[in-house]
Amino acid sequence: MELYFLGTGAGLPSTRRNVTSIALRLSRGTSRVWLFDCGEGTQQQMLTAPFGPSKINRIFITHLHGDHIYGLPGMLGSRSFQAGSGPLSILGPYGLRTFLETAIATSGAHLSYAWDVTELGNELQSVVVDGDYEVTWRPLRHGIPSYGYRIQERPFPGALRKDLLEAAGLPPGPLYKEIKSGQDVTLPNGHIIVAKNFIDPPEPGRIVTILGDTRPCDEAVTLAQNADIIVHEATYTAADADLATRHQHSTAAEAAEIARAAGARKLVLTHVSSRYDSMGEEQLLADARRIFPNTVLAHDHLSVPVERVSST
Amino acid sequence: MELYFLGTGAGLPSTRRNVTSIALRLSRGTSRVWLFDCGEGTQQQMLTAPFGPSKINRIFITHLHGDHIYGLPGMLGSRSFQAGSGPLSILGPYGLRTFLETAIATSGAHLSYAWDVTELGNELQSVVVDGDYEVTWRPLRHGIPSYGYRIQERPFPGALRKDLLEAAGLPPGPLYKEIKSGQDVTLPNGHIIVAKNFIDPPEPGRIVTILGDTRPCDEAVTLAQNADIIVHEATYTAADADLATRHQHSTAAEAAEIARAAGARKLVLTHVSSRYDSMGEEQLLADARRIFPNTVLAHDHLSVPVERVSST
Repeated sequence: MELYFLGTGAGLPSTRRNVTSIALRLSRGTSRVWLFDCGEGTQQQMLTAPFGPSKINRIFITHLHGDHIYGLPGMLGSRSFQAGSGPLSILGPYGLRTFLETAIATSGAHLSYAWDVTELGNELQSVVVDGDYEVTWRPLRHGIPSYGYRIQERPFPGALRKDLLEAAGLPPGPLYKEIKSGQDVTLPNGHIIVAKNFIDPPEPGRIVTILGDTRPCDEAVTLAQNADIIVHEATYTAADADLATRHQHSTAAEAAEIARAAGARKLVLTHVSSRYDSMGEEQLLADARRIFPNTVLAHDHLSVPVERVSST
Repeated sequence: MELYFLGTGAGLPSTRRNVTSIALRLSRGTSRVWLFDCGEGTQQQMLTAPFGPSKINRIFITHLHGDHIYGLPGMLGSRSFQAGSGPLSILGPYGLRTFLETAIATSGAHLSYAWDVTELGNELQSVVVDGDYEVTWRPLRHGIPSYGYRIQERPFPGALRKDLLEAAGLPPGPLYKEIKSGQDVTLPNGHIIVAKNFIDPPEPGRIVTILGDTRPCDEAVTLAQNADIIVHEATYTAADADLATRHQHSTAAEAAEIARAAGARKLVLTHVSSRYDSMGEEQLLADARRIFPNTVLAHDHLSVPVERVSST
């Protein structure tokens, strides 16, 4: 499981950062990719990424500002020319379907695969379950409807305690598989092996939280509760806090406060204003680390592994 | 006057070529830029071009396929954040207005400048006159409505023949200006200077023809008649002529035939399929040069000056 940042800029593309798109590469039971936002030029960024549009089977849109959606029509069109492009499900705020249908009809495109759009209404929390992953979302605070997504992996089954089984007199053999699947087993000598006593407790699955553009808000903390990684916008430095307020964005320091309040493990800052050069970006990172030390600043083509926390 | 190629690929972007956009930089009486087509990523290409979106005051769209229009909403939006962005006029096939209005409304964008869209109908020929330039267009052959544009510069006024004036007994002075403006002048000695006898004939303005995707057709020849430069799609090599027919495109050889039939001075090939590597591109160029030697193959960020033909 890995986050791959295709575009990490805010509002306007620059030579340093393209506009927003974040890929979540799923490792468990699937090699598919979920895309979060798709600003203009995302398909071009993907030309030098380790996966192409055909790998994407779900797209989640946080909000409808152009720098988050204008790459969608081109991505959908190009995906049509790639072998192995299966069905595609798109989820995002109300208005997304009309935008896509108009763009596709205008250009006379005929997509080679089935696609559907689910538009988010005012429900406080909903869920998509897909294989080993469950996605929930909540509205944030950004002037127009903007959502945050929480991707929760199912727990990993506990390991079979072969050491305990051997100590109980059961050498390795076909019965191990039955016990691992949770079945109790009666040995020839009459002993009963109660499966749950020989299986470690399940290990928690990973949690990744990806937020759309937002002012700091309680919903962000809820979505990022105990997350392994929270991806938060950090459009401005603390010194430009007035701009963050005026434009309904967050500073890096505010993002760090959210990560700390949520008890997240790691914070990735993205959606950085093009006003900052490399020194400005260092300031951004310093602002956040003062509050939440385990912070990294995303750049285009940054890959961030989502590591499992070992329970031992 | 200069053509600047922002994107020269066909259909899909590649690491070699972005999708189509061509800028015409006007030199006479204005430093403005006219854009022909605006595929996805055009604003990103412009980040390393010698002009930005604010310089553009007209956009001409040849046809509505996604690789020619999906960069428009982002370009319009980003232009809003640039100082000096004046009114913008957009001209293109029917359907363009709904596409743009939907994209802009969906994203909640508020453009900071006045803009208008003129949609082309079935008229055979129309005209836009802007300063020293006149633009006409005609429908081509591409399955969906696709247009070619002919940009004709006004003639350059002839030079004042100072040598002849001095020989006629009129030394340099304020009267020269009157004569140059076409006024006859009576000298103190009674001689009449008939202005037109002392002014060279006007020199023709330049002609640039930019065609949308098309099969070879008579309208292309008409639009490129005596053009200084014709920009023609060359999606395929001669060896792939069957693909050109099937997908309503042209081969490089077919583009060269059009340039020759039109009596154009120079041919620029663009809109090259991503199936070709550098050897394939050499073949494309060779195919065309066999028929029309003065041919160049465009690449992203190629600048082609539109030179005046000296009448002497």
